[in-house]
Amino acid sequence: MPLDKASCQQLDREDPLAFCRERFELPDELIYLDGNSLGAMPSSMPRVMQQTLDSEWSGDLIQSWNKAGWAQLSQTLGDRVGRLVGADQDQIVVCDTTSANLYKAIRAACDMRPERNVILTELDNFPTDLYIIEGAMTGVAREMRREIVAQQDILDSLDDKVAILVLSHINYKTGEILPMLEITEAAHRVGALVIWDLSHSAGVLPIELDECEVDFAVGCTYKYLNAGPGAPAFIYVASRHIAQARQPLNGWWGHAEPFAFEDEFRPAGNISRFLCGTQPVLSLKGVACGLDSYAGVSMLQVREKSKGLCDLFIRLLGQECPDSRLQLIGPRCRERRGSQVSYRFEHGYALMQALIERGVVGDFRAPDLMRFGFSPLYIRYEDIWNAVQCLKICLQQKIWQQDKYHRRQPVT
Amino acid sequence: MPLDKASCQQLDREDPLAFCRERFELPDELIYLDGNSLGAMPSSMPRVMQQTLDSEWSGDLIQSWNKAGWAQLSQTLGDRVGRLVGADQDQIVVCDTTSANLYKAIRAACDMRPERNVILTELDNFPTDLYIIEGAMTGVAREMRREIVAQQDILDSLDDKVAILVLSHINYKTGEILPMLEITEAAHRVGALVIWDLSHSAGVLPIELDECEVDFAVGCTYKYLNAGPGAPAFIYVASRHIAQARQPLNGWWGHAEPFAFEDEFRPAGNISRFLCGTQPVLSLKGVACGLDSYAGVSMLQVREKSKGLCDLFIRLLGQECPDSRLQLIGPRCRERRGSQVSYRFEHGYALMQALIERGVVGDFRAPDLMRFGFSPLYIRYEDIWNAVQCLKICLQQKIWQQDKYHRRQPVT
Repeated sequence: MPLDKASCQQLDREDPLAFCRERFELPDELIYLDGNSLGAMPSSMPRVMQQTLDSEWSGDLIQSWNKAGWAQLSQTLGDRVGRLVGADQDQIVVCDTTSANLYKAIRAACDMRPERNVILTELDNFPTDLYIIEGAMTGVAREMRREIVAQQDILDSLDDKVAILVLSHINYKTGEILPMLEITEAAHRVGALVIWDLSHSAGVLPIELDECEVDFAVGCTYKYLNAGPGAPAFIYVASRHIAQARQPLNGWWGHAEPFAFEDEFRPAGNISRFLCGTQPVLSLKGVACGLDSYAGVSMLQVREKSKGLCDLFIRLLGQECPDSRLQLIGPRCRERRGSQVSYRFEHGYALMQALIERGVVGDFRAPDLMRFGFSPLYIRYEDIWNAVQCLKICLQQKIWQQDKYHRRQPVT
Repeated sequence: MPLDKASCQQLDREDPLAFCRERFELPDELIYLDGNSLGAMPSSMPRVMQQTLDSEWSGDLIQSWNKAGWAQLSQTLGDRVGRLVGADQDQIVVCDTTSANLYKAIRAACDMRPERNVILTELDNFPTDLYIIEGAMTGVAREMRREIVAQQDILDSLDDKVAILVLSHINYKTGEILPMLEITEAAHRVGALVIWDLSHSAGVLPIELDECEVDFAVGCTYKYLNAGPGAPAFIYVASRHIAQARQPLNGWWGHAEPFAFEDEFRPAGNISRFLCGTQPVLSLKGVACGLDSYAGVSMLQVREKSKGLCDLFIRLLGQECPDSRLQLIGPRCRERRGSQVSYRFEHGYALMQALIERGVVGDFRAPDLMRFGFSPLYIRYEDIWNAVQCLKICLQQKIWQQDKYHRRQPVT
């Protein structure tokens, strides 16, 4: 039986997470399917920011480092991120960028496997991860080699030359989830360490870093965690590794006693040794607001809704646009798919521009990939219906034939 | 003739920068002499932040990377910082932390002097700079040595083994200005490169990076530039070096085409190659507001007032507290002093706590250093009078004998 708008609205009425939408500010009429690039703004943000500006920065000035807890934000927020990704406390700090944190993790891990020379990764890893591997390798005292393999060859490529395996938990193009437990165990069997990039998975599905015995992880807070544009990233180091893990960006915030102003660097005994310089407090406040949005929400509920939204989009696209020539990319099995759905389409750029103009915001990755991300805390089933109706009209009108949709934006 | 309060008020009436104070939010009754740790909040900040939250983040969401110019902020703000530090455009980006930027500069510079093994610095360099030298050295392919000498021995220690000289432009303890031109020329004569840390000088005195032919510089925006707690730092690379300068934190934002998502890293042809990951936009807005506060102000005026404020503090302390046992540290010559005055005092910690309780905020560095920083855009001559009167009363009462002023704060 074909689905209709009413049945989508019924799904919303039955949605146990429906109440979360009001925790975000979203423009009326906009259907925002790009929360995997930049999450929506938590409604608490203006109030929290006003307090930060009025009472903390301009009111208490320098004293806010103690009085308002600024000095501990990287750690307190890190522990809170930990609760969403299955990490016990004192293993995560929120700081710097995902790229910089990956750099630290790679350098630390390389030193922990001094007899091995290979950093293994996969073709579809997010490009900055590939670049950072290159950059970090230049700082390792021995000759290192970056080995890039296809996803299906990861397990077969693990051997006793592999020092580190660096992978994205969810493929940013296809939305495919890599099996964290299976891969981590396989890497450990050959004595390699694993670094997971959680940028596209943190906050959108249950993750069990401790249970999977992951060694290091990094991730982004401005996507599904809704922390705001460019908000600081996070880094996880398993507690069993912290005492041996040394990273070279050893600035004063990573010192055992930052304000003792000693001449020699002595790393903090805990995860704080992965800090470097003073963190951007205003942007850290966004991380706090983003995490607040998860109050009373279980990651199992988030995951259930995420699968429901993706399934509905795929089903409705098939039902409403049967001859669309949009080719679904990535896993068909809902258990292996993250919270995005990707399609290849030769006129993808122009079509996405047309959708954006009509208030349906997804994103496009060259050469022909259309991505639709579904943030379960604020996307409604009815939004999916409306998005597909808009897509249907654009397809019927062959909207990509219009010149104006071919003008390139510098960044999307 | 002794000075009195009325003569200080007269100085304020004659102050060509008096109008700038209203560009900042400062609590009534507070005398804030710690702008060298955290600058005051520009009055424009709440409005700018509200617009950023309402119209950019929550309104236009992902499109703000183009529409609101987020994607170019590191460069546009970098050019604006450049105008305050004597750097022509396309040589500065605002990003990351001072520590991380110093790391990049050191790694880049080491590769540009492959036949040399010494990184020279001085004892009183800010500790994180010393730590970062240690950390960065571990990533250089050859054996490097960190040589720490006393300030007066810098010039004599320059020889053809020195790859890089890393110095703070202003000593964070004593406030002494190091002669940038003379030292840079001396380093160049032996073929060394120079990296200046401008954390305590940017925004408070004229700096001529280009004219001095400085090679690299880094600096902080949250002190005299009033950009907000932990706001992103900056890095300067002289245009003649950019094509050869490679840094290992080569994330996607430093790529020639970040959104081409290529597998191999190709550095941007310009200063953007010193970027790494996505920058914290909310905190970058603070940098914009901080720089706005300099509209219509010349750095010569700022410098004149800075000298006037420091002179007045020293003179009034001598006049009002002649037997104080506070020992002035650092240069007596006003031309060699930055915008802070430091005193050693054995009860310095307790005395500073007592001053803070009474609304005169300076800071303290162990074991016995009291620092008073004077931010010329918002400190009045009358504030200096009132601060010294407060200090006088605390000294007369031997206030440090009270237990409560000895309780240590974790961070000051």
